[in-house]
Amino acid sequence: MSTSEPAPERAPRIAVIGGGQLARMMAQPAIAMGVPLRLLAEAEGVSAAQVIPDQQVGDYRDLATLRAVTAGCSVVTFDHEHVPTEHLRALAADGVIAHPGPEALVHAQDKIVMREAMARLEAPQPRWAVVESLADVEAFGLPCVLKVSRGGYDGKGVWVVRTSADAAEPLAAAERTGVRLLAEELVEFRRELSALVARAPSGQAAAYPVVATLQVDGVCREVIAPAPDLDESVAAGAQQLALRIAGELGVTGILAVELFEATTPDGETCVLINELAMRPHNTGHWTQDGAVTSQFENHLRAALDLPLGSPAPRARWSVMVNILGGDDDLGEVARLYDGYPHALARDPQLRVHLYGKDLRPGRKVGHVNVFGDDLEDCLERGRHAAAWFRGDLGNHSE
Amino acid sequence: MSTSEPAPERAPRIAVIGGGQLARMMAQPAIAMGVPLRLLAEAEGVSAAQVIPDQQVGDYRDLATLRAVTAGCSVVTFDHEHVPTEHLRALAADGVIAHPGPEALVHAQDKIVMREAMARLEAPQPRWAVVESLADVEAFGLPCVLKVSRGGYDGKGVWVVRTSADAAEPLAAAERTGVRLLAEELVEFRRELSALVARAPSGQAAAYPVVATLQVDGVCREVIAPAPDLDESVAAGAQQLALRIAGELGVTGILAVELFEATTPDGETCVLINELAMRPHNTGHWTQDGAVTSQFENHLRAALDLPLGSPAPRARWSVMVNILGGDDDLGEVARLYDGYPHALARDPQLRVHLYGKDLRPGRKVGHVNVFGDDLEDCLERGRHAAAWFRGDLGNHSE
Repeated sequence: MSTSEPAPERAPRIAVIGGGQLARMMAQPAIAMGVPLRLLAEAEGVSAAQVIPDQQVGDYRDLATLRAVTAGCSVVTFDHEHVPTEHLRALAADGVIAHPGPEALVHAQDKIVMREAMARLEAPQPRWAVVESLADVEAFGLPCVLKVSRGGYDGKGVWVVRTSADAAEPLAAAERTGVRLLAEELVEFRRELSALVARAPSGQAAAYPVVATLQVDGVCREVIAPAPDLDESVAAGAQQLALRIAGELGVTGILAVELFEATTPDGETCVLINELAMRPHNTGHWTQDGAVTSQFENHLRAALDLPLGSPAPRARWSVMVNILGGDDDLGEVARLYDGYPHALARDPQLRVHLYGKDLRPGRKVGHVNVFGDDLEDCLERGRHAAAWFRGDLGNHSE
Repeated sequence: MSTSEPAPERAPRIAVIGGGQLARMMAQPAIAMGVPLRLLAEAEGVSAAQVIPDQQVGDYRDLATLRAVTAGCSVVTFDHEHVPTEHLRALAADGVIAHPGPEALVHAQDKIVMREAMARLEAPQPRWAVVESLADVEAFGLPCVLKVSRGGYDGKGVWVVRTSADAAEPLAAAERTGVRLLAEELVEFRRELSALVARAPSGQAAAYPVVATLQVDGVCREVIAPAPDLDESVAAGAQQLALRIAGELGVTGILAVELFEATTPDGETCVLINELAMRPHNTGHWTQDGAVTSQFENHLRAALDLPLGSPAPRARWSVMVNILGGDDDLGEVARLYDGYPHALARDPQLRVHLYGKDLRPGRKVGHVNVFGDDLEDCLERGRHAAAWFRGDLGNHSE
């Protein structure tokens, strides 16, 4: 249902496909910018549907639904990367331009297409190959990482394969779903980095400081901005790499280039491309409180081809810690909201972002941002607050 | 109409009465906090109604309407100060607590009640008297300022009276509307200041830095935070005064104490209370980008009796400049949105807040925030951007 009358056309309207927390967090800068959003939510009451009045509920895989939700919108952007390429081409023919566009977006949808493009660009990446059989995997060499080319996220669709037996599950999964499999060298990395850039259709681009990210079981847990002890030339090189990829692939909006920081055989520090994402990204949530212009605002500015805002940091250090549901059974009594009294009283500078979701094991339900001059202090405060909200420090709902 | 199904009770729901830009700007921290708002808007499509899904349209002077919109809400707060006291008492009897409550709010609704309370608190204020006739005005002494005790705003309901003839219009207006008139000494002030505090029902309070405000024709034009060249003891005294007033009157939420900075007969700098406001205030808009916790977030935290966030500034200087419609006839072609390309390209650090309103003479339609180390630079950037958006620097819609 469309829940509001069409407003007078004070500004272009942006369609957003997908009702998760990324769309929810786009709503905040859209309010400040005076730019209306129209949401396609996968169900009533999901995260972004709680906060965007102009919304429809439907299936993003259905072209008629996409046409209905984008009617009257100048541009369409995304909470996720799953909208079929052919639908985006059909919308463009209707005059609704997608940011990022289908030709760019496919590199975030299909890991094999991405690896091929990075090879063409001679961008640094792990050794890789398309594999179809156990023989292919063994020929590639073990240990390795197997990934489905499409549809994986947050560690799902990724397997570390140390023995031939380990390859059985991914090979069967690929056979069952018809998705191609990619083998990648198991990189011995020092840590993971992320280079986040925004790029507008005009070609203007802005690079955020390169951050260090801690991933646990394939899920982002913590981000430190800027990455501590990162060689300046490596940091600048990673920014230039992300800007070059954004330009060469014609990305519009936010591009996150997830990187491994590794060491070459000669002992030099290098970066290798792990993944690309073309939307506001978990490794950029720190920018909401730590940068002059947040990734969400710059994503919207880029979609509208407006000049981008400064990506400069506002504090010496910014730390983001995700609030994830734990394995323990918190039951239905745990309300994230009940974490506020202690968390806010302990740290009056804490910035909390909750997504309107219930706390369930492994689910991203919010994050906290902390900034300051002392990194250890920021980490302690951020970790304490996130642990408190997830109930690790005692069940706060009692 | 209520536009969404009742969400699962993840957090208390806050009813907000009034659909102006103050309610609109509460929506941003509410999204981050995971706290749902329910809006009573005076008409469809007004500023806050564009961005808050759960809304009803109706008249805030009607108790049945207020009961309908607050049903299921723990607390109610306000975009404006016009909700009748007796209705707030009735809601409290239903279990819906108003922040600020009726006993506090009356001091922002009625200037005579406010002056009487300030006198009881021995708080510094201009000489004043209730006047009912020309003889009363002449006995008070000319020149003076006459004000209606209720219903004035943004310079409306305020007259500078230099001759007996000048008193005719306010006396007639008071007679016609049945509102009482207040005479105040015409203070020769150096400048206007504002002391903004947040106070929670628990009694916890937080004081923002005292700011300097430039008012033109009774309308806030610019704010500088902190007030330049303000004596430290005067600044601390103004903060303590605002905290004392908030405590003594039992204010919950934001209290803005608008002050005159003046000189005593002995040549000492002093402050005199001009007005009280009990809601997020134009003189606190700089906190959105210039303070750790914005006034809008602290207003919501106070309404929920959550610990308040730090009011500390994040930059040496913050400047807010309002975007007001000018006297010139910009016609219907002027879209504020069309100011973006130049304004954002000229100043990548500029923070723009538009209210979803059309540009009309004298109307507040947005503001810009600028922060930095150099006050003159901040002022130039803020003034340029605001002038550009209002069309003073050439009609940007062409």
